[in-house]
Amino acid sequence: MSDPNHERMEILEQFARLDIQRRDRTGIPEAIFAEGKTPEQVARMLDALAEKSGYALATRVSEVCAQYALDHLSSKVVVQHNRTGRTLHVRRHEYEPKSTGGKVAVLAAGTSDLPVAEEAKVTAEVMGCEVFAFYDVGVAGIHRLLGPVETIVQKEIAAVVVAAGMEGALPSVVRGLVPVPVIGVPTSIGYGYGGKGEAALMSMLQSCSPGLTVVNIDNGFGAGATAALIANYVAASKVK
Amino acid sequence: MSDPNHERMEILEQFARLDIQRRDRTGIPEAIFAEGKTPEQVARMLDALAEKSGYALATRVSEVCAQYALDHLSSKVVVQHNRTGRTLHVRRHEYEPKSTGGKVAVLAAGTSDLPVAEEAKVTAEVMGCEVFAFYDVGVAGIHRLLGPVETIVQKEIAAVVVAAGMEGALPSVVRGLVPVPVIGVPTSIGYGYGGKGEAALMSMLQSCSPGLTVVNIDNGFGAGATAALIANYVAASKVK
Amino acid sequence: MSDPNHERMEILEQFARLDIQRRDRTGIPEAIFAEGKTPEQVARMLDALAEKSGYALATRVSEVCAQYALDHLSSKVVVQHNRTGRTLHVRRHEYEPKSTGGKVAVLAAGTSDLPVAEEAKVTAEVMGCEVFAFYDVGVAGIHRLLGPVETIVQKEIAAVVVAAGMEGALPSVVRGLVPVPVIGVPTSIGYGYGGKGEAALMSMLQSCSPGLTVVNIDNGFGAGATAALIANYVAASKVK
Amino acid sequence: MSDPNHERMEILEQFARLDIQRRDRTGIPEAIFAEGKTPEQVARMLDALAEKSGYALATRVSEVCAQYALDHLSSKVVVQHNRTGRTLHVRRHEYEPKSTGGKVAVLAAGTSDLPVAEEAKVTAEVMGCEVFAFYDVGVAGIHRLLGPVETIVQKEIAAVVVAAGMEGALPSVVRGLVPVPVIGVPTSIGYGYGGKGEAALMSMLQSCSPGLTVVNIDNGFGAGATAALIANYVAASKVK
Amino acid sequence: MSDPNHERMEILEQFARLDIQRRDRTGIPEAIFAEGKTPEQVARMLDALAEKSGYALATRVSEVCAQYALDHLSSKVVVQHNRTGRTLHVRRHEYEPKSTGGKVAVLAAGTSDLPVAEEAKVTAEVMGCEVFAFYDVGVAGIHRLLGPVETIVQKEIAAVVVAAGMEGALPSVVRGLVPVPVIGVPTSIGYGYGGKGEAALMSMLQSCSPGLTVVNIDNGFGAGATAALIANYVAASKVK
Amino acid sequence: MSDPNHERMEILEQFARLDIQRRDRTGIPEAIFAEGKTPEQVARMLDALAEKSGYALATRVSEVCAQYALDHLSSKVVVQHNRTGRTLHVRRHEYEPKSTGGKVAVLAAGTSDLPVAEEAKVTAEVMGCEVFAFYDVGVAGIHRLLGPVETIVQKEIAAVVVAAGMEGALPSVVRGLVPVPVIGVPTSIGYGYGGKGEAALMSMLQSCSPGLTVVNIDNGFGAGATAALIANYVAASKVK
Amino acid sequence: MSDPNHERMEILEQFARLDIQRRDRTGIPEAIFAEGKTPEQVARMLDALAEKSGYALATRVSEVCAQYALDHLSSKVVVQHNRTGRTLHVRRHEYEPKSTGGKVAVLAAGTSDLPVAEEAKVTAEVMGCEVFAFYDVGVAGIHRLLGPVETIVQKEIAAVVVAAGMEGALPSVVRGLVPVPVIGVPTSIGYGYGGKGEAALMSMLQSCSPGLTVVNIDNGFGAGATAALIANYVAASKVK
Amino acid sequence: MSDPNHERMEILEQFARLDIQRRDRTGIPEAIFAEGKTPEQVARMLDALAEKSGYALATRVSEVCAQYALDHLSSKVVVQHNRTGRTLHVRRHEYEPKSTGGKVAVLAAGTSDLPVAEEAKVTAEVMGCEVFAFYDVGVAGIHRLLGPVETIVQKEIAAVVVAAGMEGALPSVVRGLVPVPVIGVPTSIGYGYGGKGEAALMSMLQSCSPGLTVVNIDNGFGAGATAALIANYVAASKVK
Repeated sequence: MSDPNHERMEILEQFARLDIQRRDRTGIPEAIFAEGKTPEQVARMLDALAEKSGYALATRVSEVCAQYALDHLSSKVVVQHNRTGRTLHVRRHEYEPKSTGGKVAVLAAGTSDLPVAEEAKVTAEVMGCEVFAFYDVGVAGIHRLLGPVETIVQKEIAAVVVAAGMEGALPSVVRGLVPVPVIGVPTSIGYGYGGKGEAALMSMLQSCSPGLTVVNIDNGFGAGATAALIANYVAASKVK
Repeated sequence: MSDPNHERMEILEQFARLDIQRRDRTGIPEAIFAEGKTPEQVARMLDALAEKSGYALATRVSEVCAQYALDHLSSKVVVQHNRTGRTLHVRRHEYEPKSTGGKVAVLAAGTSDLPVAEEAKVTAEVMGCEVFAFYDVGVAGIHRLLGPVETIVQKEIAAVVVAAGMEGALPSVVRGLVPVPVIGVPTSIGYGYGGKGEAALMSMLQSCSPGLTVVNIDNGFGAGATAALIANYVAASKVK
Repeated sequence: MSDPNHERMEILEQFARLDIQRRDRTGIPEAIFAEGKTPEQVARMLDALAEKSGYALATRVSEVCAQYALDHLSSKVVVQHNRTGRTLHVRRHEYEPKSTGGKVAVLAAGTSDLPVAEEAKVTAEVMGCEVFAFYDVGVAGIHRLLGPVETIVQKEIAAVVVAAGMEGALPSVVRGLVPVPVIGVPTSIGYGYGGKGEAALMSMLQSCSPGLTVVNIDNGFGAGATAALIANYVAASKVK
Repeated sequence: MSDPNHERMEILEQFARLDIQRRDRTGIPEAIFAEGKTPEQVARMLDALAEKSGYALATRVSEVCAQYALDHLSSKVVVQHNRTGRTLHVRRHEYEPKSTGGKVAVLAAGTSDLPVAEEAKVTAEVMGCEVFAFYDVGVAGIHRLLGPVETIVQKEIAAVVVAAGMEGALPSVVRGLVPVPVIGVPTSIGYGYGGKGEAALMSMLQSCSPGLTVVNIDNGFGAGATAALIANYVAASKVK
Repeated sequence: MSDPNHERMEILEQFARLDIQRRDRTGIPEAIFAEGKTPEQVARMLDALAEKSGYALATRVSEVCAQYALDHLSSKVVVQHNRTGRTLHVRRHEYEPKSTGGKVAVLAAGTSDLPVAEEAKVTAEVMGCEVFAFYDVGVAGIHRLLGPVETIVQKEIAAVVVAAGMEGALPSVVRGLVPVPVIGVPTSIGYGYGGKGEAALMSMLQSCSPGLTVVNIDNGFGAGATAALIANYVAASKVK
Repeated sequence: MSDPNHERMEILEQFARLDIQRRDRTGIPEAIFAEGKTPEQVARMLDALAEKSGYALATRVSEVCAQYALDHLSSKVVVQHNRTGRTLHVRRHEYEPKSTGGKVAVLAAGTSDLPVAEEAKVTAEVMGCEVFAFYDVGVAGIHRLLGPVETIVQKEIAAVVVAAGMEGALPSVVRGLVPVPVIGVPTSIGYGYGGKGEAALMSMLQSCSPGLTVVNIDNGFGAGATAALIANYVAASKVK
Repeated sequence: MSDPNHERMEILEQFARLDIQRRDRTGIPEAIFAEGKTPEQVARMLDALAEKSGYALATRVSEVCAQYALDHLSSKVVVQHNRTGRTLHVRRHEYEPKSTGGKVAVLAAGTSDLPVAEEAKVTAEVMGCEVFAFYDVGVAGIHRLLGPVETIVQKEIAAVVVAAGMEGALPSVVRGLVPVPVIGVPTSIGYGYGGKGEAALMSMLQSCSPGLTVVNIDNGFGAGATAALIANYVAASKVK
Repeated sequence: MSDPNHERMEILEQFARLDIQRRDRTGIPEAIFAEGKTPEQVARMLDALAEKSGYALATRVSEVCAQYALDHLSSKVVVQHNRTGRTLHVRRHEYEPKSTGGKVAVLAAGTSDLPVAEEAKVTAEVMGCEVFAFYDVGVAGIHRLLGPVETIVQKEIAAVVVAAGMEGALPSVVRGLVPVPVIGVPTSIGYGYGGKGEAALMSMLQSCSPGLTVVNIDNGFGAGATAALIANYVAASKVK
């Protein structure tokens, strides 16, 4: 006869080995969301993660938090602080970052969208991709898309991140011009009715351009990670 | 000494002559919003208005209501029923419609936006304008804008109505290509998050294109009337 | 000296050749969204599109509309009607559908999510993919994920669509177990606060699992098309 | 003949004795919600309540408010300040807290959910329960649920509080693994669409797991009090 | 060295035995949510579930669906149809329902709240509880609470379900008068601002009465199941 | 020593006499909200209430429900059916309605607001007031306010109900011209953004005119009852 | 023949005498909403208004603004600063405030509702009423309503203001016990779902108690002014 | 045969000449939205734009940003800082601003609406219009509209901007009195339900006055630019 208590335990024990190699299983490494954590917590988590995996990434890092980390992180690691993107990338001296051959493009509509775009860019780079960034290419000056689209096609870039606030039309336009998936990331830019990214998110979800998928407002990390995941898979397929 | 009651009456008596010549005062004639009214009410109001002004317009007219009106309206009037635009235009035989020389363009993004676009078109025509209509010119096939834009500039059209649902990007795009004001009218097309015109309205209000103003969802009458108001004013200026 | 009117025309003329080969340019063929169109319109558009491209797809096809199309479509085409997915797939006799080698998985949380999942499945098949469908694998019986995950990894499936309503937790869970991108499609299932897909959409956008991107509520076509786009790109890369 | 005024008075006089022993009548003692009150008000109310009942609890206590209370509370009381949970627990020296034998578990999904979880924990302890706290057991690392579930079943814990922000999936998952009621408390963690706890609240209310009930966002006190109420009732039943 | 694919499989295999005895593990039996399912599907699922467990419950059963089930269910089962509560309770002849000794009260504010209250009542009865129902005891006639409260205390009822729409004040009032947990279930009664249960849900979540927890609008099944879960646990504790 | 159970009972027993003379205590008689009730229920409740109080009022009465009541109500009562206002007023032959001397005005902005305005009018009449109704006096033809304002001041009307949909500006305008309180009742007229009475409710609550208070959308009964309550109090004061 | 321009002018000239005696016409004096104005502006407006009318009232006055006014107001006026209610009442020495004989009650549910309640109280006093204030009489301790209700009935108070946040149930309860109109004013107290007064506003609008009308969140001035308007009218009626 | 890549490039190259003369093409010059940009960025962009076009406009300029610009802008330009309107207007010494002859009116309901109104006024002036500003003409003192309306008609003003917060009724009223288009700009004034401009936006969109169009909350620049666009077109028509 079955014993529910025993059954419950058996199931859960299986989980115990589950998260050891999160990157191998899901293709995306863990990252630290610094907002709402103390500088001490962030620094300690970065050290611990780098200890375990050789490197670590923190996002939404405030100036104060970054300064604290730069002052207190273990001497065993090299630190890269991206001020615009508010990221901290930490790598142990002995860790050799590997290039995957994956290729990703990141586009930003306006100057105000840069923090989100940079977060996406750093994330994809940490995941081993080559990233082609094109900023200030909003729909108001649509001719500026010339360079990005040419590069995306010629370089055989596998996935494109497009960050845009206000009415959020850029991802739809870009998607209509390239033969690869576009990940739209609405930014919290805009005011009044539909402000704080709401109109941008809505427009992207209502878009008539299939092949465009969306992450939450300001989620540059999620957009960059998804693009890199696709690009790395494509690159791995080519190798075979 | 002042007497508030007397003062109150004096003010209001002034109002009594106010609405006699609404069209002269505001430049836009009264219209009957048929939704929520019985066919009898609509028919009676059309007759009364035509009696007074020589002509009358009803919008949001259902098939049933239109049929009733066609059957029961006074024999003194000529009736035009626009099925797509759901309008009834009634004119007494002796009434001579005058062309103002005003020129208006009406664009619709998709087939589903036609009822709203036609409502705008009929309204502007009733107000004496020449109307140039361009339908199915959504952003997905942006090359189809070639004709409309050329016409708008060459014919010196004074105001443009753009009806669009879904993500509502067309008015912003059109406004970026023409030298005259664009009135965006979101249509209740779309589903899920931002559906029923909400995303379209938001996008138009968040638009980066100055010179674009907006009316409420599905308000083709308001959009057409505003465009005609501008066009008629411009035409009158030319004459002087 | 520059002439704005001339400049405007030059730009737009370029667009005129733009949409001829939409599929070549964007990797996704045009489809007909049947909701809000008359059966006649849908049938005519299917015939026209099939005439031009050899095949055509319509989504959100009602029973009435499907019956009309089956009765009236040109005898030059073969028709496949997916009742659950509410799709009509039309193919001219001489048209030879090509398999791309792309592999896609489609999962549905519950029975009520089937229409959306089937729409995604048909879309990916029309785009040449092999589709592996796993239905009724909601989080309430998480052990049922065993089969799908095993297949996804062993078959080297390149992208996964997960349709879920109510609290919409399934896409996050699936994404945590597979090494490829997951496209979450919230379904309009659920009632009360957060009903009609709102909670599902919100949960997917708030998800802690990077690598999960989202399309609008009930947008099975968009989800399936994106997954096929990725899978086809991966398959093309392998061939090289 | 009936006299409405007399009747009104009679009714209300009955109420006058109503609140004397709130704890006896409802099973939950009164607590002071410190937010929006001045430190002086909070300190005075704590002294008064402790005078009357032997002890008192204040929640949502800011650092400034806590410091003021520590400096100014009557010397007749012992004070416990829980910094993370933002609570002040005050007890008169002669007051002997009684253990009820009730057993409650408190789980928190992430570090950011700790303040709410601790508020629940302190509340249940003040009500005489033994509390088993398990923090950082979010769905991302589902194997970490092993310990909590084992303890809940073996220790015969009567009710479980689960605090979670973002997509708020943890309470549903926990409820599916334990044989006792789960009280979900959404926390105001999350950003963009569905942020500030909205997605978490929605997900919990849309959850497919019956046996899960919900309190308002960040209401750790309400969750802890309900769990303790259940646990104390169960404990009292065992004694009989 | 670890193999992510192997690891993945191992985990999932554990799940395969998970749902066999859902009732034993979680204390609440599976139920069929009939809304959005065809009568055939509902009838087949009831037969299958009854085959496995001896009995089965379906909720949100329409008249048509109920009639179909009554006509087509296997002759091996006895069927009880609660019209007001829209439930079908099916039991195989040889199945002997067991009383748990658990005691639950169900209160409804108004006549319109009855369907939800009855759904809760039937659910708790199916789970073996004795249910005391008190209807039409809204706050407008607060004296009518006399009977219910007296019964709840004297019968040592362990949990109370309160269904209320409009402003949803009843659960707070009841909770202030009884020493046991109250589960509030907002009903979709009300119109205008805050209609369809929104105001009721909000009020219950904002309530000042700790010990009140909430389920989603119209979720009588969830409320009844939670109350029965608590009551059965208390009853089991008494036996020991 | 205090006994919580005894205390609880004592309190509630007091309530038992509470609702006997609701009208005496609160100044407003009970009414039957027919929406969501069966014709049988409504008819039976009308008979019962008329039996007790001599008369009874039902609101939101559908045509079907009204016809049923007219056919089945006891022969002891006289019935008045207001079709526009959707009310049924029932009075026993021997019951002598008393005029209170209270004076109320009811204004409606447009034809579509009539059902709500009539509901308010009938309610105030049932409460013994003389009601002065002025319809179709919307802000578009502000001169039409001349009559109503003159009457309100000269007749010393004590309270004014104003029903308006769309942008809901009329109550503010009226309040600025009369020396007595105005009760604004938004009607569910309007479409698109702010439709179904939302804009009207918002405008009335944001109004700059103090002395304007508001009831929920379409709540003509509440508005009429409040106006009559004030008017009756004023009339009673005059008598003294 | 009519001249629209002439007509327009004639109408507007009538308005020119309109606002001279706002208080006489509408029964409520003008007040200064200080929020968003500079201290200088507020002080100057108070002086100007007092110069004209003998007295003046400002609401939502910050500490800084109040201090500035106290320092800079003309020496011809007496100033009363209500800190809790954030009001400044200014009166010229020679101005003799008149008591109207109107009687108003103001109730507040909790300590946090005091600012709004005091704003209402000061407003009614400035309008010449005698105000009876009862604070901390929330539904949690319903026996505390004894005093207020007794006073309201015995003193023949004509209108009652009830300020409440959170679930906002107090106005409904009070309205059920008194024979005069209740004006509910929701306060911006509460957190999470329905916080900032939204739940309170919704509950009051959904209330089952006719005779309760509502003003916007935190609008103590509007509530107090309406109550005083009613009370003054009643008092004037008695005199006649 | 067509080459999608080639086709793509051809299209985009056309765009490259597109934005050179934005003002000629669209009739409205580019402006700098300073909010969210650093003072350095704003100053640099102003210098660059003035270098190119002879003049430049920045909106939403904070005090700090304005001071920085005044200190650091090139000596080749003249700077005008409008403090209330938060604008910086920069003009090179050799640039000769041209008057277009266009005439625009700007009305503001209250003192709090001035920043938005001034932004509109400065924008129209920079575009060469003569602007007639009328402030503090809210509906509460409707007689104050006398001057503005008289001027609008006699001066043949071509377009009117009306800024209003709270219930936002002014634009509808003004539109009913003038024969030219009105652009309503809701301001973020107001509190509680419908606060921050939501009620104002809604009212304007629900308005019964055709000829009124709307821009987003606080978008003074968009409103002023649209009005100037119309006025300039009219003026140009007169010249011909």
